[in-house]
Amino acid sequence: MRIAVISTGVVGRTLAQAFQRVGHDVVVGTRDPDETSGREEWRGVGVPLQPLATVAAQAEVVVNATNGNASLAALGEVGSEHLAGKVLVDVANPLDFSQGFPPTLSVKDSDSLAEQIQRAFPEAKVVKALNTVTASVMVDPGSVGDGDTTIFAAGDDAEARQVVVGLLRELGWVDVVELDGLHNARGLEMWLPLWVRLMGALGTAEFNLKLVR
Amino acid sequence: MRIAVISTGVVGRTLAQAFQRVGHDVVVGTRDPDETSGREEWRGVGVPLQPLATVAAQAEVVVNATNGNASLAALGEVGSEHLAGKVLVDVANPLDFSQGFPPTLSVKDSDSLAEQIQRAFPEAKVVKALNTVTASVMVDPGSVGDGDTTIFAAGDDAEARQVVVGLLRELGWVDVVELDGLHNARGLEMWLPLWVRLMGALGTAEFNLKLVR
Repeated sequence: MRIAVISTGVVGRTLAQAFQRVGHDVVVGTRDPDETSGREEWRGVGVPLQPLATVAAQAEVVVNATNGNASLAALGEVGSEHLAGKVLVDVANPLDFSQGFPPTLSVKDSDSLAEQIQRAFPEAKVVKALNTVTASVMVDPGSVGDGDTTIFAAGDDAEARQVVVGLLRELGWVDVVELDGLHNARGLEMWLPLWVRLMGALGTAEFNLKLVR
Repeated sequence: MRIAVISTGVVGRTLAQAFQRVGHDVVVGTRDPDETSGREEWRGVGVPLQPLATVAAQAEVVVNATNGNASLAALGEVGSEHLAGKVLVDVANPLDFSQGFPPTLSVKDSDSLAEQIQRAFPEAKVVKALNTVTASVMVDPGSVGDGDTTIFAAGDDAEARQVVVGLLRELGWVDVVELDGLHNARGLEMWLPLWVRLMGALGTAEFNLKLVR
């Protein structure tokens, strides 16, 4: 599958390498590929970089792994014509660190970042996923506890959710909870205020919830 | 221990009976004990009812199990003089159903109901606990899955947290995560928007999260 990952941060890099490892044709979008490829942390990453304006032109799946407060602008540079009809996996969280730690959410409760993205790019098929865990856990669920924890996929389009569920399974996720309706992203994003506090209390980001029922 | 439970709803009733069962001296506060005791659902409950104005006078622990939007008013009727120096377990959630289901939160993110209560009754020792699960699970954690799920206790006062942790253990909770600082209640209350959606998706309120680390 042709996957374009938007973001050159740790989440984008981690996901891009993981999707490449399981056999996908992955490109990473960045404003300036030459600048990015010169960065220390991009040495040896081995995933091709492309300018945002063209990175998603051939993609079947686009992954938004940008900082939540920069997502709408970054996806605007990707271009609505390159997002139309595509599965858009929204991994971002609208964390606002302007008042320090712990962060607040810049959108919440009666709206979500995922829904803002869906409204801005109505022809994309937005699915919220993976935003509930840290980058290393996203691509290695077996690394937490006994390996049996829960991940979510929320979106309006059932086929798009299925594509994302398939990708999650390739990353090693077994307990995938599908939520019908992108409004469920409000709940998934509002997990973050508890997540950041648990990270502080536990002294690690390498944890997750198991939904026990 | 002398425990006053504020609320005659299902959460109050369930907690009052459970605390009585494990040997505590429990009273339930209500505006009109005669009216409450005449209700169908109070037949056979077997926990003494007292008017709000006197219910907490002799209590060591006060449990706020009211509707979150009525908590400040109800606790005002209990009286700050009867809350001073007491452990005040806040089980309530500030759910706003005015726009239908799923509810939003009437306070969140940069504040919480627990902190509002603490500010209104500065001499009480507020501990947020049990708000993350449904009433039946609060008093019977073994009923969910393999019985090994997680409950939280957040507050500023370490001794008050310890009292609450002790009560939680008596109810059967093994995995109790203590969070130092009542601001952590923001995270615990913001779990609810995900909780209500999971309840919808799972078709039951009898679930909980296990914090896997």
